[in-house]
Amino acid sequence: MSGFRIEHDLLGDKEVPKDAYYGIQTLRAVENFNITGHKPHPELFLAVAMVKKAAAMANMELGLLDERKGKAIIYAADEILAGKLADQFVVDAIQGGAGTSINMNVNEVIANRAIEILGGEKGDYTIISPNTDVNMSQSTNDVFPTAIRIATIKLTKNLLDEIKLLQNALLKKAKELDDVVKIGRTHLQDAVPIRMGQEFEAYSRAIGRDVNRIKTSLKALHEINLGATAVGTGLNAKVEYIELAVKYLKDISGLPLKKTESLVDATQNTDALADFSSTLKILALNLSKIANDLRLMASGPRAGIAEIKLPPMQPGSSIMPGKVNPVIPEVVNQVAFQVMGNDHTISLAAGAGQLELNVMEPVIVYNLLQSVEILTNAIRTFREKCIVGITANKEHCREMVEKSIGIITALLPHIGYEKASQIAKELSESDETVQEILLRKKILPEDIIEEILSPKAMTEPGILCE
Amino acid sequence: MSGFRIEHDLLGDKEVPKDAYYGIQTLRAVENFNITGHKPHPELFLAVAMVKKAAAMANMELGLLDERKGKAIIYAADEILAGKLADQFVVDAIQGGAGTSINMNVNEVIANRAIEILGGEKGDYTIISPNTDVNMSQSTNDVFPTAIRIATIKLTKNLLDEIKLLQNALLKKAKELDDVVKIGRTHLQDAVPIRMGQEFEAYSRAIGRDVNRIKTSLKALHEINLGATAVGTGLNAKVEYIELAVKYLKDISGLPLKKTESLVDATQNTDALADFSSTLKILALNLSKIANDLRLMASGPRAGIAEIKLPPMQPGSSIMPGKVNPVIPEVVNQVAFQVMGNDHTISLAAGAGQLELNVMEPVIVYNLLQSVEILTNAIRTFREKCIVGITANKEHCREMVEKSIGIITALLPHIGYEKASQIAKELSESDETVQEILLRKKILPEDIIEEILSPKAMTEPGILCE
Amino acid sequence: MSGFRIEHDLLGDKEVPKDAYYGIQTLRAVENFNITGHKPHPELFLAVAMVKKAAAMANMELGLLDERKGKAIIYAADEILAGKLADQFVVDAIQGGAGTSINMNVNEVIANRAIEILGGEKGDYTIISPNTDVNMSQSTNDVFPTAIRIATIKLTKNLLDEIKLLQNALLKKAKELDDVVKIGRTHLQDAVPIRMGQEFEAYSRAIGRDVNRIKTSLKALHEINLGATAVGTGLNAKVEYIELAVKYLKDISGLPLKKTESLVDATQNTDALADFSSTLKILALNLSKIANDLRLMASGPRAGIAEIKLPPMQPGSSIMPGKVNPVIPEVVNQVAFQVMGNDHTISLAAGAGQLELNVMEPVIVYNLLQSVEILTNAIRTFREKCIVGITANKEHCREMVEKSIGIITALLPHIGYEKASQIAKELSESDETVQEILLRKKILPEDIIEEILSPKAMTEPGILCE
Amino acid sequence: MSGFRIEHDLLGDKEVPKDAYYGIQTLRAVENFNITGHKPHPELFLAVAMVKKAAAMANMELGLLDERKGKAIIYAADEILAGKLADQFVVDAIQGGAGTSINMNVNEVIANRAIEILGGEKGDYTIISPNTDVNMSQSTNDVFPTAIRIATIKLTKNLLDEIKLLQNALLKKAKELDDVVKIGRTHLQDAVPIRMGQEFEAYSRAIGRDVNRIKTSLKALHEINLGATAVGTGLNAKVEYIELAVKYLKDISGLPLKKTESLVDATQNTDALADFSSTLKILALNLSKIANDLRLMASGPRAGIAEIKLPPMQPGSSIMPGKVNPVIPEVVNQVAFQVMGNDHTISLAAGAGQLELNVMEPVIVYNLLQSVEILTNAIRTFREKCIVGITANKEHCREMVEKSIGIITALLPHIGYEKASQIAKELSESDETVQEILLRKKILPEDIIEEILSPKAMTEPGILCE
Repeated sequence: MSGFRIEHDLLGDKEVPKDAYYGIQTLRAVENFNITGHKPHPELFLAVAMVKKAAAMANMELGLLDERKGKAIIYAADEILAGKLADQFVVDAIQGGAGTSINMNVNEVIANRAIEILGGEKGDYTIISPNTDVNMSQSTNDVFPTAIRIATIKLTKNLLDEIKLLQNALLKKAKELDDVVKIGRTHLQDAVPIRMGQEFEAYSRAIGRDVNRIKTSLKALHEINLGATAVGTGLNAKVEYIELAVKYLKDISGLPLKKTESLVDATQNTDALADFSSTLKILALNLSKIANDLRLMASGPRAGIAEIKLPPMQPGSSIMPGKVNPVIPEVVNQVAFQVMGNDHTISLAAGAGQLELNVMEPVIVYNLLQSVEILTNAIRTFREKCIVGITANKEHCREMVEKSIGIITALLPHIGYEKASQIAKELSESDETVQEILLRKKILPEDIIEEILSPKAMTEPGILCE
Repeated sequence: MSGFRIEHDLLGDKEVPKDAYYGIQTLRAVENFNITGHKPHPELFLAVAMVKKAAAMANMELGLLDERKGKAIIYAADEILAGKLADQFVVDAIQGGAGTSINMNVNEVIANRAIEILGGEKGDYTIISPNTDVNMSQSTNDVFPTAIRIATIKLTKNLLDEIKLLQNALLKKAKELDDVVKIGRTHLQDAVPIRMGQEFEAYSRAIGRDVNRIKTSLKALHEINLGATAVGTGLNAKVEYIELAVKYLKDISGLPLKKTESLVDATQNTDALADFSSTLKILALNLSKIANDLRLMASGPRAGIAEIKLPPMQPGSSIMPGKVNPVIPEVVNQVAFQVMGNDHTISLAAGAGQLELNVMEPVIVYNLLQSVEILTNAIRTFREKCIVGITANKEHCREMVEKSIGIITALLPHIGYEKASQIAKELSESDETVQEILLRKKILPEDIIEEILSPKAMTEPGILCE
Repeated sequence: MSGFRIEHDLLGDKEVPKDAYYGIQTLRAVENFNITGHKPHPELFLAVAMVKKAAAMANMELGLLDERKGKAIIYAADEILAGKLADQFVVDAIQGGAGTSINMNVNEVIANRAIEILGGEKGDYTIISPNTDVNMSQSTNDVFPTAIRIATIKLTKNLLDEIKLLQNALLKKAKELDDVVKIGRTHLQDAVPIRMGQEFEAYSRAIGRDVNRIKTSLKALHEINLGATAVGTGLNAKVEYIELAVKYLKDISGLPLKKTESLVDATQNTDALADFSSTLKILALNLSKIANDLRLMASGPRAGIAEIKLPPMQPGSSIMPGKVNPVIPEVVNQVAFQVMGNDHTISLAAGAGQLELNVMEPVIVYNLLQSVEILTNAIRTFREKCIVGITANKEHCREMVEKSIGIITALLPHIGYEKASQIAKELSESDETVQEILLRKKILPEDIIEEILSPKAMTEPGILCE
Repeated sequence: MSGFRIEHDLLGDKEVPKDAYYGIQTLRAVENFNITGHKPHPELFLAVAMVKKAAAMANMELGLLDERKGKAIIYAADEILAGKLADQFVVDAIQGGAGTSINMNVNEVIANRAIEILGGEKGDYTIISPNTDVNMSQSTNDVFPTAIRIATIKLTKNLLDEIKLLQNALLKKAKELDDVVKIGRTHLQDAVPIRMGQEFEAYSRAIGRDVNRIKTSLKALHEINLGATAVGTGLNAKVEYIELAVKYLKDISGLPLKKTESLVDATQNTDALADFSSTLKILALNLSKIANDLRLMASGPRAGIAEIKLPPMQPGSSIMPGKVNPVIPEVVNQVAFQVMGNDHTISLAAGAGQLELNVMEPVIVYNLLQSVEILTNAIRTFREKCIVGITANKEHCREMVEKSIGIITALLPHIGYEKASQIAKELSESDETVQEILLRKKILPEDIIEEILSPKAMTEPGILCE
């Protein structure tokens, strides 16, 4: 029948579209896994192609793979790395088989492209076999975990860049707002004064810790299990092959990868991936906290706390004219929730490894790369469309400090907790200010009161007017 | 050696404290599981004792169990149900073995107490055997799931009572605060007016839905697998025994239990428990939302939203005199987090069943009963120490409505979205009120404006001044 | 500049592509929310379009909306419902603003299409205004929650169909395999015999409970808050409008929707969505358990339990020839993990409501509809490509029963637990069968032994050979 | 009234039991928080007492605190540190107020004990005030976070010791079992041979990574915010005090604590605690995986995989004589689930910080210390009662390798994937061994076959018989 070619595998014959570079095993996977409608992240296929190229180079060098075949395979892999053939990667993101379908999709595409290069017809695997040649010295169980790590590292680079930009933007904003004295709040209750700059600096520091945590965790992902083959023992992978393949993969990927100390361990365990996801969860928690604070501080404009103004990004309401909502912090919150849910999925999947393998890696990498990507996007959005444009309602902040009761705390070293409590209680039932009641009751001389109750002075360590 | 008696089991001999009613298997469990330092909930042991009594009655009636033995067993079980021997239940809450140690703990205590009653010496299992006699026609795999359900239903009764009391307290508060008109907020931004009573009524309704959800889910827990024995097939349990045992258990427990339609299904699956826990999670979400709102509305006293006052329960700060914090909503939030974490543990455990049994039931029941209990306590606390004492700052609420921009929404049917937006924009840059600008710009006659901008009228459906 | 038209909103002017049916607010949203690269589910836009049509019909009937405008709006909405203009819905799935961007996207597309129908030029909102006309009597805060419910109900119909088909397939398989007697296992340890049919019947029953739970929870989603407008008070929505709009929406959607009893409650709370998601989580737990069991029972082919064969779906390994893996149960497990993670995200978002609204609804609906859809796909796949093709290794199952020690349990009523334990201990150190040792030790006559140890008889309640 | 003394605070008078060392604020907390029935971990009170002592020393040295008072405070704190007065710490583990009740409980106990030492009567706070004197220069908001860190570090020391012992026990077992060649399994399907030693070594390595992760994360907890006082600004805490107090606390605790770089940041953020909990979650995942594998490998004894025997710890069944269950791995699994649930609670709480403080710290520390403790106990139990006693069924393992089909993989470099697949397919339909079919079909000479199919050789990298 025209339009199709016949391919054959363990389970029998099957028609494959004539033009397709993928083959029978990819097609079976497409039919078997019709789940999300989403493909795996493109970066993952690129990473598999890098492994294929590195393996072919190593196999050629050791005389295991014919030069002619090897060069064609490398040529085909290079085309993929240059962005070609992207439409040939067609399997669903969530799939059974521990990534075999992703590996075979790449094996088949490379094989058929290489066959073409060598003048053959697609599907003529006597020229180049997806399994015997392209997958030589490899197993899905080392190719796929290796590719997951490469793709994750590649994408995380952007994330780290964005986090650092956010950290800096927060720090810059902290400096800009350092003279805005406002009432600090604990339990959402008025406490003692703080400078808005101190708050933003704290945000910046929290985000800075995330950079370190992510980097530390990412480091562990540089250990790869290439050469492990089926169960981590390295059966069919020569020792020299493993050394060479890792070396070439470092070059091709441009990443400081290294061979894991234990191939068996690295093949069966996914704790490094789960740990990496957890660091993203912590980042999400920190982002969420900042977003929540900003939404709270920006509440109003007239009946809220109204300490800051966020840059307006879009009309907020289809019914309430003039309403502007904190849509950017809101999207950050939601991305944080998504990342936490993804982390949950990843933990569940990472806990489901059995014996020599964790077959749940496809759902792990699907969620992990989504987390990295949406965090990158959300953080960029947060910085560009919210943080940098924040302004303070300085005057309103000052007024709230002046009328607050909590500033009485500064008198503690002078009058003791019990007496201060008494005054505070009286204040809570009137509209008087702390200053007024102290003067009225002649508790301390006016100049001393003034010095002690200086809002800005209260924002640094020390006992005022000692 | 004095002070000890020697007991024997499959694994050999062991010294058991002479006075102990528990025996060798309990002792092994105590030694094996030294994990949390907490015991299982007392209600769980009572529930197992009920099963023992029901089984003994059924076995006696069928002539399987000697009358003399049976009566002694029932007598011992009754003592436990009357609160005696509670210190003899000594195994750790988290344990391996799918509850076998809890079942054997009760079997041994009942056996030894029954032996005593019959004039024998503790440990002389020729008189009454914990396995052959007390556990007759039973297996841990039907006793334990049945006991879990009974204990859960018993404890949930209190929870449902407390939820309903809270629901009513919220409704009562809604009526009390129904004339407090305040600014409604979406996105934490000022929107249009709402009555505080409407808000509390909404809280009450959400909590009311929880009552229904919990009841529906609890109903499924009334199906028990007594008679399933080891794998659900009922081997060694006569059909007549099953009918009788369930009948007696209904009487003893006072609960409308019924035999499950499929003993195999009910022995291997814990989805009914996981589902029940999920309804507790939803309750926790609703409680958390209410607690969050109250903390927000009570923020202040002077530099927050300050729409309500929560009853002060304790000095809030060791350093800030006069500070009073919303400690009751805060404990509700934390209980909600605990319940959500417990639900997570329960889901993980429920997902870990294999073939004929889910051996993770001990950690399920540990978390489930804790969730029920701390929710009961937190809800009672919430109602008694917070909800009933809430008062509104009515005047402040009114002021915030009057100065808000959002009330311009009521003019939409009169002047359209675009024009209203224009006015709103101007307002956002000044201190004018909506009323003032409308008058100044002569957009509508004064009386019409007044009618449209009536805050209370805005809190009900309709187009004002149509 | 040609190619663009200029539109204007609260925040200023903006170029919109000339051909676009969406307008300035959609465009702002697209620029603001560049997060996942995925669009919301198409069913969600259809549901919003249904709301728009119903609202227009009600507004027209009440004389609030000009007939000519109204008819054009309805015509445009009908086009969307017929599948047209789908490429005009361009906002990202995760977005701030509580769905305002989705609502405005539909408002703008309908407005511009209606303008076109009326002979105007796209962007000339004097003809039809997206806010004043298309969104008349509505707010995102009632449109969006209503649309979420409609889309969820629509998609869940397919899910329920698939679950029931699975339930039936499992039941059919149970009948087919009812004469396969195998060793039951608890704690993964050999226990007593069970029929494979009993196991599959139990699976079928668990799945059947999910149908009921999902239906019960789904019922609550039929209550909609249309007419709530901004904060649930119904400002600007006439009482008659609300009744009419709900009535028309029932017709248009074909669903038995009803107006919620409390618009304020329904606008601020998302517990019904979180509860619905939890029922999906329980379904996922049950599916996961079944998938785990099948993978375990199919382990082998030669060095595992090997009680069943799953239909081979694809070559299992790129390196191990002839290997066939349980790829379908594996994808079911992964979908279950994804659904549990999604449920986590949904719980987090549902817990983040504040005061009159939960602004996190976009991430809720994104995850909810994905869960429904991937469960539908996974369950169909599970049934078609796995369950229906399962076959039993009946002979192997029989052999394992015969050589097992656990069958000694059937002798308990005859020889007591202690004596049976002694024999079991001896057996555990030899290769003898229960039958052999009983005969050798002359514990019971041969015919009695045979009767008691009949495997099939052991799979039903009762004491054998009483 | 005899039996009671009257104390007074902001909210009024209250009777305190005459003998109690705690005072009115503790009593209010006990009445307010009747939630779990559990107290906070004792280590937490010790840690608070350490802070009190350090603060008193610093305050004395700076002349802020009267020597006589200071010495009495220190004396009282030392008594607590020596284990006295433990029954005076009576507040519930889950409580509102961000730890204020725990701080005040210690403040009051120390004050009253110090008053007694100075010859006063309990309750006479003119002698020593819990707030003014014992809490001098402090706030709950620096005392409590500091104490959480100290308690966590202290308890984690034991955990780390136990993890390392487990790691070593696994490694020792790996050496012991290194000559046991068994069939490796991926997807639970027979794959290629592996040595049991390789598997246990992999377990050891995974656990080793946990040591590193926990240590890295724990390091961050050494940064404390002592001196932050109410909102992190250090109001009322002299700069010299902060330096001295931290210095003394290092001495008293024996821990290399250091002052955080930013007190504001450290007061509002709990990401370091959430991150630490996440590392415990990863440990739990690894433990769970090992426990699952052991249960699977020990399945049987006759109808399972039966590669290993776990030491029998207790009779496994109340009904099935002779049954021994893997109760220790099962308890490890359940502890893992508990820790994951706890981590979920901690994440939720850590995400709920607002502005200057996270008031959810009590539920964080409750779960965190429980996780540390139950992991410590479970790991010790796992090692002592399971790992060290594991033995292999070496002969059975060998037989399963010999009859497996997967070993054909070793022929791949010799005969190619396609031909090997053909042979594998034939084998899957017969009982022949790989060796037999190769000989029968004369595919390779006998000596070559033997060399290639050497099971042990297959467990190392390389192409056999090249």
